[in-house]
Amino acid sequence: MSRYFSSKYSQLTPYTPGEQPQDMVYTKLNTNECPFPPSEKAMEYLYKNLRPLNLYSDPQMDELRKILAETYDITPDMLCINNGSDESLNFAFMAFCDENRPAVFADITYGFYPVFADLNKIPYEIIPLEEDFSIDPKKYMGLNKTIFIANPNAPTGKILPVSTIEEIVKSNPEGVVIIDEAYVDFGGESSIGLTKKYDNVMVIQTFSKSRSLAGGRLGFAAACPALIQDLNTIRYSTNPYNINSMTAAAGIGTLKDPEYTKRCCNTIIENRAYLAEELKKRGFEFPESVANFIFAKSPKIDGGELYRKLKEKGVLVRHFDKETICQYNRITIGTRQQLDVLLAKIDEIMEEMQ
Amino acid sequence: MSRYFSSKYSQLTPYTPGEQPQDMVYTKLNTNECPFPPSEKAMEYLYKNLRPLNLYSDPQMDELRKILAETYDITPDMLCINNGSDESLNFAFMAFCDENRPAVFADITYGFYPVFADLNKIPYEIIPLEEDFSIDPKKYMGLNKTIFIANPNAPTGKILPVSTIEEIVKSNPEGVVIIDEAYVDFGGESSIGLTKKYDNVMVIQTFSKSRSLAGGRLGFAAACPALIQDLNTIRYSTNPYNINSMTAAAGIGTLKDPEYTKRCCNTIIENRAYLAEELKKRGFEFPESVANFIFAKSPKIDGGELYRKLKEKGVLVRHFDKETICQYNRITIGTRQQLDVLLAKIDEIMEEMQ
Repeated sequence: MSRYFSSKYSQLTPYTPGEQPQDMVYTKLNTNECPFPPSEKAMEYLYKNLRPLNLYSDPQMDELRKILAETYDITPDMLCINNGSDESLNFAFMAFCDENRPAVFADITYGFYPVFADLNKIPYEIIPLEEDFSIDPKKYMGLNKTIFIANPNAPTGKILPVSTIEEIVKSNPEGVVIIDEAYVDFGGESSIGLTKKYDNVMVIQTFSKSRSLAGGRLGFAAACPALIQDLNTIRYSTNPYNINSMTAAAGIGTLKDPEYTKRCCNTIIENRAYLAEELKKRGFEFPESVANFIFAKSPKIDGGELYRKLKEKGVLVRHFDKETICQYNRITIGTRQQLDVLLAKIDEIMEEMQ
Repeated sequence: MSRYFSSKYSQLTPYTPGEQPQDMVYTKLNTNECPFPPSEKAMEYLYKNLRPLNLYSDPQMDELRKILAETYDITPDMLCINNGSDESLNFAFMAFCDENRPAVFADITYGFYPVFADLNKIPYEIIPLEEDFSIDPKKYMGLNKTIFIANPNAPTGKILPVSTIEEIVKSNPEGVVIIDEAYVDFGGESSIGLTKKYDNVMVIQTFSKSRSLAGGRLGFAAACPALIQDLNTIRYSTNPYNINSMTAAAGIGTLKDPEYTKRCCNTIIENRAYLAEELKKRGFEFPESVANFIFAKSPKIDGGELYRKLKEKGVLVRHFDKETICQYNRITIGTRQQLDVLLAKIDEIMEEMQ
């Protein structure tokens, strides 16, 4: 910290993203990326439809919003396109929370929520998960604060049905309910339809997981036009050209090939069932996941130790240094081959311990 | 504005970027884009070196920082890579200004500065330009506040020499001096060298103007490592993956072909001389510009009227609705052909007025 750094941020602890080592090649199961590249059709679209890069990208993202609106049967004015989910989330914290309207979220959820709150000096309330890592919807009823729910939740992989989300939305008419659906495409049901019925719900999605574009940085928020206008007020006051032309073209190309995305998601769902079965055989315990990861612990080995030993053997998983979950590791569902490498290394580690 | 929008932003007026019409093709001389596409070598590098997009981009941007550091003879820890200059500037407002350390900038300069200040609830002081649109450096001495200077300034195109910037930096040891060099490559001299001597100067540059990558969204801040660390605290608290892999590759490719950038800049400098001469012949008045635009007025026609008539005729220039400069239009230096279209349309308008 320099002596010029504003004291208002001196206590700020930035988010720690999952390791992205550039030094060697790991079997990388730590940041919930899709193990499959974007489809050939999507890349072809990108190369053939790229606007000349010397010209600014379209700040309104008209073309991308049009095809995205068609995909979800909403209107383009119900969409704000952002630089990944993180930007959408930060804008939502800025727009809809303040001292009079605190943020509310679970104790075990996406670790960036408290950072966004701290950055923006927003008070927040934490609702602990139940013992089985589930969210008790009753605890979210009638709060009339700004509620953030990752659905499916991370790192647990558990989901609330849309009907329950709707109950929460209905019971909080004085607060916006933000549903973070980064992992919804691996067997979950999206709440985007609710944005047509309620003026206080916003759904945030990303192209980083199911759509194979983590390296493209693309996400969006869907909500009624008035809420989207609020996000745009923030966007046009920070960086109107937040999305570059390459990312826009890659995103459009991806949306033009939904069959490929569906196939990738189906393979990941199959691989998840395979990993779940194999982990069970080895005595691991985990909540049932509808996301592209499994959050598992073994009664035979400490969570942090397993993480470190796997890393030594070239396999990266995600470990969180938080008391309530430090026995667990979040394992991204990779290809069958990647999962077999992981399982072989787990077996090695277990053998070495005997 | 929805009824959920935080009252802290209810007075916020977002920045209005230059028009980016998607409906028809204009002779577009309104947003200071480079009229030449990125070099073939740069695009080839992009296509050949693109990391698989399903994996996250490198949040540290190691490769890009390395070649950029070599380009400017500084070290990689003196660089923070951002999503265009706007993101760097917003982060600098956040990091180095607060109620105790107000921002200071000119009355006529990049119109986004007051928006960043308002967004972040930062008090600011305005120093009027002199009558000839120059900055009087004496007025910036010993302020010990956070000073923002666009150098060359926009929309005037006037520049202060590095020796004068150094005097300002030396006289403000208690404040950071931020030099916004978006337009420095068209005949100006960069202050980046000062970042090796002083711990209170930050230079912000963009790839949008001289490097033909406005649609790629890439910019950077150069400063001593402690100031860069402060920016990174903000960056990792908003969006650690702010730069996507395509933009990174396009940026590296561009830096690997500096001769092309130099050639483009030289052509623009030649075209600027041509436009200046032709405008003078037609009675226009303007400060001498070292940027890729000329800020000109005609005693024969109102500035707003000229802007509107040019637009009707398919030529876009930038007009600012601000009392002190509303007689002027900012004209981007395009290709010789684009400038000839502009001049022909100006001649038509003048004839029609007689």
